[in-house]
Amino acid sequence: MAPPPSTVVSPVVALVIRVLTLVFLLVSVIVIATTTATSGAGPTEVKIKFDDFYAYRYMLAAGVIGIGYTLLQTAFTIFQVSTGNRLGGDGFTLLDFYGDKALSYMLATGAAAGFGLTVDLNRGSGSDSDTKSFLNKANAAAALLFIAFIFSAVSSVFSSFSLPKRT
Amino acid sequence: MAPPPSTVVSPVVALVIRVLTLVFLLVSVIVIATTTATSGAGPTEVKIKFDDFYAYRYMLAAGVIGIGYTLLQTAFTIFQVSTGNRLGGDGFTLLDFYGDKALSYMLATGAAAGFGLTVDLNRGSGSDSDTKSFLNKANAAAALLFIAFIFSAVSSVFSSFSLPKRT
Repeated sequence: MAPPPSTVVSPVVALVIRVLTLVFLLVSVIVIATTTATSGAGPTEVKIKFDDFYAYRYMLAAGVIGIGYTLLQTAFTIFQVSTGNRLGGDGFTLLDFYGDKALSYMLATGAAAGFGLTVDLNRGSGSDSDTKSFLNKANAAAALLFIAFIFSAVSSVFSSFSLPKRT
Repeated sequence: MAPPPSTVVSPVVALVIRVLTLVFLLVSVIVIATTTATSGAGPTEVKIKFDDFYAYRYMLAAGVIGIGYTLLQTAFTIFQVSTGNRLGGDGFTLLDFYGDKALSYMLATGAAAGFGLTVDLNRGSGSDSDTKSFLNKANAAAALLFIAFIFSAVSSVFSSFSLPKRT
């Protein structure tokens, strides 16, 4: 028998989860991209930005790729909600499955890389309040990315259950 | 119709993937747990160990939990290969699905946290060769954990395809 290419959860629920992912990704990217700090004073003054750290660069990249993918998926889901039809068939379901899985791994690793660096830098950093505030904002961006990851993991569970049963 | 509780891939393939996950997890845990370095000399000498860094502690924790879970799954798969029966039914399939998914996220974040810290510490570290060697070993442990993650992600794809189709 050929299983119907329908999804398991209501498309409206799927849409809400996508939009939530998108919102948290957007805020995370804005926070990490705009955060700066000044270390030292006078001639030894050094500007610190996210791109001084590879972990934060990866975090930003994961967030930006996530925004692109989630925007696309949101558009498809809006199409599905409004017309009642899903684009494509089983092939599309498979693409959703792998795409959602890959994205959720990317967001998880992005958040983890950010946390991994920030937590230990924070313990090592002295009383320089500007550096502390920079690290706190980086921490906040990682936390937001982590919340976006949770939503993308939910999407990934949904798309797993929508897989056609292969026998 | 009630879908059969069979898995999609051959149990032997599933077993090989589990054993590979286990091997890489074991080596990763041994490398990170045994790595030490001595910084400075004489009275200012400081011993550095993995548990001085939260990111490496998390990496070790993820590896150890991964070993426990993968050992259990390996035992179940050996049982399946030798008897031809899978323990439980659809309930077990669901447990596999969520367990494999959770484990692969844990290993991915463990490796990413390790890389996130190590890459930037490595750039900041001076010419102290003992510290450099410590960071290189931590990097190797993260890389091994990442390979274990790849295998666990494959297991997770298998268990997703084995999900009963819900209609």
